[in-house]
Amino acid sequence: MINDSLFTVEEWNIREKELSLDTLAQTESIFTLSNGHIGLRGNLDEGDPHGLPGTYLNSFYELRPLPYAEGGYAYPESGQTVINVTNGKLIRLLVDDEPFDVRYGKLLEHERELDLRNGVLRRSIHWTTPAARTVKISSVRMVSFTQRAIAAICYEVEPVDAPVRIVVQSELVANEALPPQSKDPRVGAALESALECEEHQAREASGMLIHHTRVSGLRMGVAMDHHIEGPPGTTVTSESSPDVVRVSIIGRLKPGERLRIVKFIAYGWSSLRSRPAIHDQIIAALAAARQTGWEGLLAEQRAYLDDYWASADVELEGDPQIQQAIRFSLFHVLQAGARAEGRPIPAKGLTGPGYDGHAFWDTEIFVLPVLIHTIPDAAADALRWRHLILDRAREQAQQLRLRGAAFPWRTIRGAECSGYWPAGTAAFHINADIAYAVAYYIQATGDIDFEEEVGLELLIETARLWCSLGYHHPTSNQFRIDGVTGPDEYSAIADNNVYTNLMAQHNLRWAANAVQRHPEKACALGVDEHEAANWRMAAKNMLIPYNEQLEVTPQDESFIDYQVWDFTHTLPHQYPLLLHFPYFDLYRKQVVKQADLVLAMHLRGDAFTLEQKARNFAYYEQLTVRDSSLSACTQAVMAAEVGQLELAYDYLGEAALVDLHDLHHNVQSGLHMASLAGAWLAIVAGFGGMRVQDNSLSFSPRLPDALERLAFRLLFQGRRLYIEVTATEATYHLLDGLPLTICHHGQEIALSMDETSTHSIPQIQAGSRPSQPEGREPVRRGVRV
Amino acid sequence: MINDSLFTVEEWNIREKELSLDTLAQTESIFTLSNGHIGLRGNLDEGDPHGLPGTYLNSFYELRPLPYAEGGYAYPESGQTVINVTNGKLIRLLVDDEPFDVRYGKLLEHERELDLRNGVLRRSIHWTTPAARTVKISSVRMVSFTQRAIAAICYEVEPVDAPVRIVVQSELVANEALPPQSKDPRVGAALESALECEEHQAREASGMLIHHTRVSGLRMGVAMDHHIEGPPGTTVTSESSPDVVRVSIIGRLKPGERLRIVKFIAYGWSSLRSRPAIHDQIIAALAAARQTGWEGLLAEQRAYLDDYWASADVELEGDPQIQQAIRFSLFHVLQAGARAEGRPIPAKGLTGPGYDGHAFWDTEIFVLPVLIHTIPDAAADALRWRHLILDRAREQAQQLRLRGAAFPWRTIRGAECSGYWPAGTAAFHINADIAYAVAYYIQATGDIDFEEEVGLELLIETARLWCSLGYHHPTSNQFRIDGVTGPDEYSAIADNNVYTNLMAQHNLRWAANAVQRHPEKACALGVDEHEAANWRMAAKNMLIPYNEQLEVTPQDESFIDYQVWDFTHTLPHQYPLLLHFPYFDLYRKQVVKQADLVLAMHLRGDAFTLEQKARNFAYYEQLTVRDSSLSACTQAVMAAEVGQLELAYDYLGEAALVDLHDLHHNVQSGLHMASLAGAWLAIVAGFGGMRVQDNSLSFSPRLPDALERLAFRLLFQGRRLYIEVTATEATYHLLDGLPLTICHHGQEIALSMDETSTHSIPQIQAGSRPSQPEGREPVRRGVRV
Repeated sequence: MINDSLFTVEEWNIREKELSLDTLAQTESIFTLSNGHIGLRGNLDEGDPHGLPGTYLNSFYELRPLPYAEGGYAYPESGQTVINVTNGKLIRLLVDDEPFDVRYGKLLEHERELDLRNGVLRRSIHWTTPAARTVKISSVRMVSFTQRAIAAICYEVEPVDAPVRIVVQSELVANEALPPQSKDPRVGAALESALECEEHQAREASGMLIHHTRVSGLRMGVAMDHHIEGPPGTTVTSESSPDVVRVSIIGRLKPGERLRIVKFIAYGWSSLRSRPAIHDQIIAALAAARQTGWEGLLAEQRAYLDDYWASADVELEGDPQIQQAIRFSLFHVLQAGARAEGRPIPAKGLTGPGYDGHAFWDTEIFVLPVLIHTIPDAAADALRWRHLILDRAREQAQQLRLRGAAFPWRTIRGAECSGYWPAGTAAFHINADIAYAVAYYIQATGDIDFEEEVGLELLIETARLWCSLGYHHPTSNQFRIDGVTGPDEYSAIADNNVYTNLMAQHNLRWAANAVQRHPEKACALGVDEHEAANWRMAAKNMLIPYNEQLEVTPQDESFIDYQVWDFTHTLPHQYPLLLHFPYFDLYRKQVVKQADLVLAMHLRGDAFTLEQKARNFAYYEQLTVRDSSLSACTQAVMAAEVGQLELAYDYLGEAALVDLHDLHHNVQSGLHMASLAGAWLAIVAGFGGMRVQDNSLSFSPRLPDALERLAFRLLFQGRRLYIEVTATEATYHLLDGLPLTICHHGQEIALSMDETSTHSIPQIQAGSRPSQPEGREPVRRGVRV
Repeated sequence: MINDSLFTVEEWNIREKELSLDTLAQTESIFTLSNGHIGLRGNLDEGDPHGLPGTYLNSFYELRPLPYAEGGYAYPESGQTVINVTNGKLIRLLVDDEPFDVRYGKLLEHERELDLRNGVLRRSIHWTTPAARTVKISSVRMVSFTQRAIAAICYEVEPVDAPVRIVVQSELVANEALPPQSKDPRVGAALESALECEEHQAREASGMLIHHTRVSGLRMGVAMDHHIEGPPGTTVTSESSPDVVRVSIIGRLKPGERLRIVKFIAYGWSSLRSRPAIHDQIIAALAAARQTGWEGLLAEQRAYLDDYWASADVELEGDPQIQQAIRFSLFHVLQAGARAEGRPIPAKGLTGPGYDGHAFWDTEIFVLPVLIHTIPDAAADALRWRHLILDRAREQAQQLRLRGAAFPWRTIRGAECSGYWPAGTAAFHINADIAYAVAYYIQATGDIDFEEEVGLELLIETARLWCSLGYHHPTSNQFRIDGVTGPDEYSAIADNNVYTNLMAQHNLRWAANAVQRHPEKACALGVDEHEAANWRMAAKNMLIPYNEQLEVTPQDESFIDYQVWDFTHTLPHQYPLLLHFPYFDLYRKQVVKQADLVLAMHLRGDAFTLEQKARNFAYYEQLTVRDSSLSACTQAVMAAEVGQLELAYDYLGEAALVDLHDLHHNVQSGLHMASLAGAWLAIVAGFGGMRVQDNSLSFSPRLPDALERLAFRLLFQGRRLYIEVTATEATYHLLDGLPLTICHHGQEIALSMDETSTHSIPQIQAGSRPSQPEGREPVRRGVRV
């Protein structure tokens, strides 16, 4: 946990006023800068001390063996693991004889600040050396949104009370020693010194390193150059060796004088391109960045973010902590996806090595909706990545003896990297999730070209998968999907998981409709009328179990017959349950790790009445322990829909603060992108009641007591909207774009740029507050003091 | 596969007339000698060539790491693996300058013969050296049933046509190089050179080696001594080093002269005893064997086996191949269990390293019934072993958050060694299987002391397990056991597997009844009336699913709703399916690896009507692919019961020839004890229709056309019976013991030693022959040519 006073509560900044060494690894994640292509953890400039040094390039991985005590057919033999690439952000400082290290001497001041509007990480230090010399140091770090290959640092030192000799060593370091990441010594061995040098070079204030990975054979390069301003007599030398390039800047400074260094860093990698090609590529990027200059990069960054916030900002009155958290969330979601461009958005973005850097279904279900409504091109790119790995997914389906495409449960570049199939490969819903995101993107953007070029094939191949995974029961004629795993990881290999079946139904229908819209392309992809008719038939006959006795939708066909987990005798320290109980016991009991049926009610709200939603929501509330970060946001959305606004507000608090307060005790290995995106969903789909269905946009806004006003912006079909909500009414603004008809609480409203449209919010009669398992209630946020 | 002409068909011998180098590894398994404590694979005396050198001591293991790509709570971190211990059977021969090796020179004659009545492996050789000297060599090898620590070899050489110089090197060799057993290099590393020397010694014709295992820390010793007869001038020298003791016997032989060496070998091991204690123990055993002498050991062996066959022999007229196979089977079952004495009976006995030397449920369900009726003390010992590891099973239950005892799915000394829980730890039926064997043993022997000392606690702790694994459903009040794995390994983690539930029901009832019989001991074990009443209640309300529409008992609650496996498109080379299809697909389809519901109908025949049995049998026949060796025998038993006698006969052929014909292509790593025992079950429980229920013995004999006469012996409650069956009648002989009432086809019969009792066999109307999946029909045996 992070103490909630670690960061000051501000509108547009995350500020740590004093350095907390105990939470260094956590703040490194929180202060990560990234553009979706390069990720730099918020390590201190001087490298030491550190929690976990981290520099990542999207999709740059090494292979590690996946061992099995007892193997099986088609178990993956190796897994792709993100690696810490060459560290370009290192700037060491020597003041007279003393290396600058916050653990020695006297730290008079140390402040770090992530600036969400300017897109930089600032640091200012006031330090007295053990030999009693005092200096001020400041650094401003950025990873450019506009120049994808570029990071830059402006580093300044000035003496306070007496002249000092300063040595600044600005470095590129490959194969940094890392704290051990795994108990398995072989995994460590595979990832230790994963990089092999191909070229190293230093000249004056510049240098470069080119390496390749030993097993996966990927090639990466990093180059740096510096713009140095210092008093006369400041000298620069440089040297290189296979794993280190060092530029040393030496000067004598008197009080009032300042050494200012701008470090430009360019990264590039490829699985195909030659060493000389990578070499030239990064030199070119560096040259462009130098030409733009530090001030130019700052200005571009600000303009890029101004544009983003104009479409994405959320304003909350009544809760400054959540106000800060939602902007932090939106900033990091942007950082994860902005410039990924045909590469995945991993579960932790590029903020840490958690989950091996893999992308899962959470990208499509939690992250992409935010991007679709705020920076839709980035969402399209993420789906293009799925299209790029489609051939690999077809191979996977074939290996599993299925038709169509079976997307990997976890991967970096397309290969299935799941080493435990019941909670990995068996979670076939990921295919419907991808199709869902495709459909969502097309509806929310109207991008019909994307549908034809990218979406159609994804829809077709996933529909084919469902037709081979499920079957029509010979007597009931229901379409069954047996023995697969839904979102809830405390159940596995279940029959007719409702989430899976409803999402598959949606997938099949969308595929059939898309085929109708693009008959020629569909024909080229081998779809005939008969096949599309089969999809419609499967969708029509899809088995959706229902328990008449309890009037509840079971999570899967057997779930409600299972024994309810013994929550009373489960001790607080036994959560998360998976660390204290065997899977076999979790799977055979009524206990839910994360929203499953409740998520189905959000995404397929059309399949339930409001009464069913309320009953189901209450039923699953008492079983859901939220041992996953993918739950609170969905519970917030559905709590809001069924009128449990205070409960929704509590869940929003949990989703929004997962990382800033380290609620899951693992933020050190990276941020939870889905929960960050989920905070937006909790607000916009929860309190805003936003849904996209049948190509149209609707809202059913309602606020909890604590919030006086909510306002949010979003994009829809090329328009920019601004929605303001108070306790009693909602006002809709069309900021730009053609007139549009939307829904407010079921009522159609025509919007145009000429006038705003204000509507009152109807009352809702909600039942009593649903209960949660003992000790697993969310922290009460809604209670005003 | 082994060509069916490899062995001659004889009544009491397995004879290989010519050495087949291609099947060396297979015949090494088949020619294994063992007494349940020591196992010597049938390696050639001279060590080379070999398929797989093998010398095993029951329960002597090393630990190897069990790795996981993704770990989980309570996954075992290491597994116990049987290791090849010091080889004491090695006798090398030099003829003039030429080492005797069957691959060089000219092999004029090479015959090997396993003698099932004398309990020895004979070998006779006629060999011409590359330098054209011809010798006759013979060896007779035994592992003594009467002196548990002792093996012995009588080795003779004589020149045929010219004088030769002979050097015989008789050795003890530790840490023999083995062919690689695993793809995982770490496993190999752990098991390579597993033995560390503590003592080595050689003096005159004797020697000794004492070693311990590096990780598991077990200590073993082996000592040898020789009795040598040769022409004057024959000399003996010896030497020792940490891993080798060598006694060299050198002599010059003229035609007509002979060198005869009797090698006595004594083995001992302990996890507790000191080096000197082991030293003395094996020296003492060796001294006793020397005193008995070779002829004495032979005589004891014959007497022991005569006694065994008097209680165990099966005579079959009309099928000499099966006649031979059933005696081979009975001999190996005896070898696996005879002197295990508080140690397990592994799935492969001590015939090879297959399944890591682990014991599974097959011991209790397939092997013990044979031992109970032929050498009941050995059966009691095997169950005492379960009692010895009860504390470990209690710990396992606790770790799994269950009550009572959870016996390991696979183990050598009690620790769970299963590295894939859905087909391991989740197969809780093993606990009911142990209870079943306890109940069977008590009923078939009347050994009430055993029940009090050993059986009661086993029954109680397993009953407790079931009460914590299952629960009374709140509305239906049925007792459900969800999410466990039954015998069929192509299903897993299923709800209310009928086999499991019926066996648990039996377990609970037996425990409750045993508690009534032994109230004081039960009280000491903490059982009160309330607990026993709970057991009865759970048994009474046990959910046994039934499909009214098809009038079939489903294997588990969901099984019959699943899609039937696409047998039509499954190619012959795709069997066994588990090597060609993912588990997830096997688990979610109607396809059966091995008898599951059909086994339930055998063991819990009281729970089904004959009509139900016939319908169920036919239903599962069309789904069962027999990718396991634990299936054909049970299918034979139930086919016979429902009157499908020709089909039963075909299955008997398969069960009986699994090893002699290597039908599963893996006999090189050891014999299939359960299938060998299953051949006896197919005959005695199948064509003999023998059942033990409610403390009494019944028969419903019926023969297939091909068999003219079947006769078998067995023990029951201290009596020895002899049963003869022809096509039309059955004759019951009580060979010794008090009068006894048995059943013949439902009719009570009083037997006494005074007179035999002959009864006609009623006709049965069986339906048409059930069909099997395409290409998986058993080989037709019943068709007379």
